Amino acid sequence: MDKLAMTEAVMAAKADKGLTWETLAGEVGLNPVFVTAAALGQSSMPREYGERLAGALGLSGEVVDALAVCPMKGTDQTVPTDPLIYRFYEIMQVYGTSMKEVIHEKFGDGIMSAIDFTLDVDRQEDPKGDRVVVTMNGKFLPYKIW
Amino acid sequence: MDKLAMTEAVMAAKADKGLTWETLAGEVGLNPVFVTAAALGQSSMPREYGERLAGALGLSGEVVDALAVCPMKGTDQTVPTDPLIYRFYEIMQVYGTSMKEVIHEKFGDGIMSAIDFTLDVDRQEDPKGDRVVVTMNGKFLPYKIW
Amino acid sequence: MDKLAMTEAVMAAKADKGLTWETLAGEVGLNPVFVTAAALGQSSMPREYGERLAGALGLSGEVVDALAVCPMKGTDQTVPTDPLIYRFYEIMQVYGTSMKEVIHEKFGDGIMSAIDFTLDVDRQEDPKGDRVVVTMNGKFLPYKIW
Amino acid sequence: MDKLAMTEAVMAAKADKGLTWETLAGEVGLNPVFVTAAALGQSSMPREYGERLAGALGLSGEVVDALAVCPMKGTDQTVPTDPLIYRFYEIMQVYGTSMKEVIHEKFGDGIMSAIDFTLDVDRQEDPKGDRVVVTMNGKFLPYKIW
Amino acid sequence: MDKLAMTEAVMAAKADKGLTWETLAGEVGLNPVFVTAAALGQSSMPREYGERLAGALGLSGEVVDALAVCPMKGTDQTVPTDPLIYRFYEIMQVYGTSMKEVIHEKFGDGIMSAIDFTLDVDRQEDPKGDRVVVTMNGKFLPYKIW
Amino acid sequence: MDKLAMTEAVMAAKADKGLTWETLAGEVGLNPVFVTAAALGQSSMPREYGERLAGALGLSGEVVDALAVCPMKGTDQTVPTDPLIYRFYEIMQVYGTSMKEVIHEKFGDGIMSAIDFTLDVDRQEDPKGDRVVVTMNGKFLPYKIW
Amino acid sequence: MDKLAMTEAVMAAKADKGLTWETLAGEVGLNPVFVTAAALGQSSMPREYGERLAGALGLSGEVVDALAVCPMKGTDQTVPTDPLIYRFYEIMQVYGTSMKEVIHEKFGDGIMSAIDFTLDVDRQEDPKGDRVVVTMNGKFLPYKIW
Amino acid sequence: MDKLAMTEAVMAAKADKGLTWETLAGEVGLNPVFVTAAALGQSSMPREYGERLAGALGLSGEVVDALAVCPMKGTDQTVPTDPLIYRFYEIMQVYGTSMKEVIHEKFGDGIMSAIDFTLDVDRQEDPKGDRVVVTMNGKFLPYKIW
Amino acid sequence: MDKLAMTEAVMAAKADKGLTWETLAGEVGLNPVFVTAAALGQSSMPREYGERLAGALGLSGEVVDALAVCPMKGTDQTVPTDPLIYRFYEIMQVYGTSMKEVIHEKFGDGIMSAIDFTLDVDRQEDPKGDRVVVTMNGKFLPYKIW
Amino acid sequence: MDKLAMTEAVMAAKADKGLTWETLAGEVGLNPVFVTAAALGQSSMPREYGERLAGALGLSGEVVDALAVCPMKGTDQTVPTDPLIYRFYEIMQVYGTSMKEVIHEKFGDGIMSAIDFTLDVDRQEDPKGDRVVVTMNGKFLPYKIW
Repeated sequence: MDKLAMTEAVMAAKADKGLTWETLAGEVGLNPVFVTAAALGQSSMPREYGERLAGALGLSGEVVDALAVCPMKGTDQTVPTDPLIYRFYEIMQVYGTSMKEVIHEKFGDGIMSAIDFTLDVDRQEDPKGDRVVVTMNGKFLPYKIW
Repeated sequence: MDKLAMTEAVMAAKADKGLTWETLAGEVGLNPVFVTAAALGQSSMPREYGERLAGALGLSGEVVDALAVCPMKGTDQTVPTDPLIYRFYEIMQVYGTSMKEVIHEKFGDGIMSAIDFTLDVDRQEDPKGDRVVVTMNGKFLPYKIW
Repeated sequence: MDKLAMTEAVMAAKADKGLTWETLAGEVGLNPVFVTAAALGQSSMPREYGERLAGALGLSGEVVDALAVCPMKGTDQTVPTDPLIYRFYEIMQVYGTSMKEVIHEKFGDGIMSAIDFTLDVDRQEDPKGDRVVVTMNGKFLPYKIW
Repeated sequence: MDKLAMTEAVMAAKADKGLTWETLAGEVGLNPVFVTAAALGQSSMPREYGERLAGALGLSGEVVDALAVCPMKGTDQTVPTDPLIYRFYEIMQVYGTSMKEVIHEKFGDGIMSAIDFTLDVDRQEDPKGDRVVVTMNGKFLPYKIW
Repeated sequence: MDKLAMTEAVMAAKADKGLTWETLAGEVGLNPVFVTAAALGQSSMPREYGERLAGALGLSGEVVDALAVCPMKGTDQTVPTDPLIYRFYEIMQVYGTSMKEVIHEKFGDGIMSAIDFTLDVDRQEDPKGDRVVVTMNGKFLPYKIW
Repeated sequence: MDKLAMTEAVMAAKADKGLTWETLAGEVGLNPVFVTAAALGQSSMPREYGERLAGALGLSGEVVDALAVCPMKGTDQTVPTDPLIYRFYEIMQVYGTSMKEVIHEKFGDGIMSAIDFTLDVDRQEDPKGDRVVVTMNGKFLPYKIW
Repeated sequence: MDKLAMTEAVMAAKADKGLTWETLAGEVGLNPVFVTAAALGQSSMPREYGERLAGALGLSGEVVDALAVCPMKGTDQTVPTDPLIYRFYEIMQVYGTSMKEVIHEKFGDGIMSAIDFTLDVDRQEDPKGDRVVVTMNGKFLPYKIW
Repeated sequence: MDKLAMTEAVMAAKADKGLTWETLAGEVGLNPVFVTAAALGQSSMPREYGERLAGALGLSGEVVDALAVCPMKGTDQTVPTDPLIYRFYEIMQVYGTSMKEVIHEKFGDGIMSAIDFTLDVDRQEDPKGDRVVVTMNGKFLPYKIW
Repeated sequence: MDKLAMTEAVMAAKADKGLTWETLAGEVGLNPVFVTAAALGQSSMPREYGERLAGALGLSGEVVDALAVCPMKGTDQTVPTDPLIYRFYEIMQVYGTSMKEVIHEKFGDGIMSAIDFTLDVDRQEDPKGDRVVVTMNGKFLPYKIW
Repeated sequence: MDKLAMTEAVMAAKADKGLTWETLAGEVGLNPVFVTAAALGQSSMPREYGERLAGALGLSGEVVDALAVCPMKGTDQTVPTDPLIYRFYEIMQVYGTSMKEVIHEKFGDGIMSAIDFTLDVDRQEDPKGDRVVVTMNGKFLPYKIW
């Protein structure tokens, strides 16, 4: 079972059972973004978690195997056309150089890891319209001097 | 004075005076990321703030004018090559579809605004290596049904 | 049923019954452009409208489900080659900077939302040749100062 | 005087005199979007109008000549990165196929001209936030059968 | 029947019957380039002509329907690699700016329509080697001043 | 004197003297499109013609030298954004495959030369609006079988 | 039978019979590069040769038909990634401008035809390591002055 | 003196003295293509040859130094637009896969070196029109098995 | 059996038998990177090794044949999106010019061969976190002077 | 002093003094690749090292300042055209997927850091031709499960 078939199986079972990523993530014991990324074939999920996810969805061990495979990550579109995803591209285009300045000022030369990294999506209530809060938390990696 | 000359003037004065974005932002009364974005020509800064920034840097009113102009935003590189900036592109490539799933689940069809939007960069101390925390906070905009 | 199969089902039923987007939109109670966008898999259609659309076309509840899914929007062509669609790309290329100037003059720094947004296509009779009138109406979103 | 120098001269005089596109357009007797497009080097302006524009700005006949030249139109960025301009690209990406369906239904095979074409930008007051209204009006051109 | 299946049906019938585009165009009463464009799915053919084409090829009414649909025009290759087609790209690259100069001189600001447009391909006998003559004939469209 | 300086010199002299490409071409004894292409640095002009062109414009022998140099042809934009030039790209996109079919039917496998090639631009009067007629005439080059 | 199926049929028969391009070319009476190009769908092969090729491979007349069709030439990769093919791209990148200088010096303004053209691949023995010799032979085509 | 200034100096001196690449190459004792490549900044020329080239052109030692520097090779255009250079791109597109087949058949898996490589451009007289003969000669490099 | 089917067969057998690349490479007598590259269709594997690999995996002679075919190398993504693979692109972007300087200083003008080339991946234990060591070893190829 | 001026100053002083990267690196006490990367504006060099480098080259403190700035890394070419640099792109294209397989097998899901990273270039003597040995050493970063 390849990642594509795995994703289809997960999506179909999730829809059939009327489950949410939130609920599934609770059963698995991990963050909903991580669980979704694994289900969409963008992260590998260790077997102990994969078994809980497959269990919650009533799926076979093949799905557990497929979830554990290290995926070929990323997509085919260089610039995303979906508006929701594009906004993150726009943020990088508009604020990328500013984040670079501020991170270098706070930490010196180096980067925020996108590997030793977590990402949360939260809803913040607001009378003028609720807000999406995306929190990225990555280890600072200083450039090695050699 | 165009945005390029403005950025050079700000960077030179900031270096001469040995100021940080943090300090400047404190004087201006805005977030360091916003102040940096204005200084780099990626945001327009209202005159009341621009005057404080120019004042802190010992710069003329021309800089205030230039800061207030609505800039042509974004950069020339479709895919950024700078590693620090690229990681945000990578996060969009790898987690973009997951954020889409989770935001739609939490909010319905729509997007996180990148306009009614704030961005913070913080340092989180950690014995295994300090962490960069980037918090994006944007109003949820539901698609209009018409 | 994925969006592709949904579109094929809608197009086939529409052709079989000899219906127009105009008529279908009237039955659904929404704008023809919105209904077409939903049918082509570029907008999500809430179930109450989807049921009317499926009803008018004699299609099953699976189509209603598929219409309600939040789609991955946009197409694969960076620059469209179809002449009708290309003209909108050309308008953006030629008049984009002018619209930017005029909108900033009228509203300050910010953008026209493409989310809190409606789009109408009308026919204007004209003895020298009828005219297409496309009206875009989007909420002005001012940049947040933070 | 080439188009670039012409644009700089117009922008500088406009800023010095504290004029708006709206006012200038009134003096010239044309639409603000058209006047801006000519000033930015994206449209040619006939001499009779160019003289009025130069007059209002206190500029020389060289500017009138430069305004009358047929420009090389469009910009260098295939996908615009400026958020305001990008939204028009996004509208084309998301609603292009729907506009195609609806225009073909209303008019048959052909396109909306972007040459025999006008474009208005208006402000619509709205208690929930004012709205930008962009009206595109182009002659329908049917494909010739030959 | 979609355009792809339609093209395959036409090509197969044309090969089986040993017909040429020239002959088919004669039966349909239109130009061979137009008939080929319709057969390849790049033009829509009104039903009265489509019936003659289908008749000449011994094909069903489904082909007539498919020929009448407004196609999504153009191809996937930004720069064509086929040498015959590439030469037209090269002509645009090398002589595009010259045609622009000469057309503006003869007609003023505006363009040659590619919609109210005909295209002929002829063979010119020449003792040094016969020549291909491509004649493009498009209505001049002056830019509207508004 | 490089090609860029040469083009500027020619354009300035042509404007100063109020000459047209048509007139200049008459003096040189060549087609206006060819003369324009040489002036814009897209064709090399043999010295005998270059002297006549320089003479008509009152320019020095340096221009004659520069006109005679074999230029690096083509432009930087892969897809042209200028609407007049783009239409030729569109014609290639939409009718390229049809021209290929018809040329192969009339001539066999091979191409229309873009080198042993002439291009005329004419004005055809028409009560419904004058028409631009572009005639491309290139030697047919059959593929060698080896 | 389309070109893809034709190539597969030829490759399978060639492998089954243990034939080389060299041998097949000998049977057909043409150059191995040309025969390979026809087999890979990049050249059209006249029926008289196609029959010999099909005969040598024990294939049907359908293959002869398919070989005779004028193909859509070139591939999908703008920059080839295969190292052997890339080296020819590199040669064009590094020595293209030099070949241009030398050909113009030897022949005047014009090009080497890639249509009235032959290409040989030979093995040159060398004690330091045998060498590949690629000989390209194309008619010089002078630019027409018109 | 950088490579750009070096090329300009060489081109100017060559034009002033009315020398050809052929003559210069004779003086230097190397192939005209190599000498041109060095002059255009695409090859490094060892000092002993550079001195002869500078001597023949009456240029200073700075040119010798500049010729000896290892250049950053290649150009900015991914697909060349100049017709003469494009034909080599086209040959790679059309015959690249065939050369791959034939070279692998003659030599096994590996490539033709573009480094241990020579390139000759010759004129072959032909009553039907003289021909350009380009001979590429590169060491075969077999892939290492490790 | 084409390369794709071959890769699938190898991956399936490897997973079924629970073998590692390390073990398989030991059985074949070659480096794990080379064996993986052959299995993924990026290198050709001589039959003697292919037989050992097929033997270890319990696969048929068809796999041996497929492994021995010279593959079309490289992938479709110009810039890789997978983070692990991207880092090698980043290293080339960031350190490419430095490696060029240092290699030219140590060896003169020429390149490191990627054909007469080996690549090792090793694990270096480190108390601060184990390290990946990639060793590339390629013959230096000096540019030929001709 | 920006990075470009800094690089020019370093290159000029290095050439004037006839120093090598090897020698300079010895004086600075760092690896030649790192020193070159800093000099070319691709790495930031801490002031203590920058002072030694400036000292060895007889350059001012401005260079030390410029060396210490965090640079905007990478280059403008998506696919490098320089043959030496391209080979590293090719290695990524051809062996990227194999390195991914082998690293995942040895380490689990994660990547080799290009930040906590060193790179050595060595010369390995070999009677068949000396070899370039490039050693990349990066910390393995496992993906965080969250």
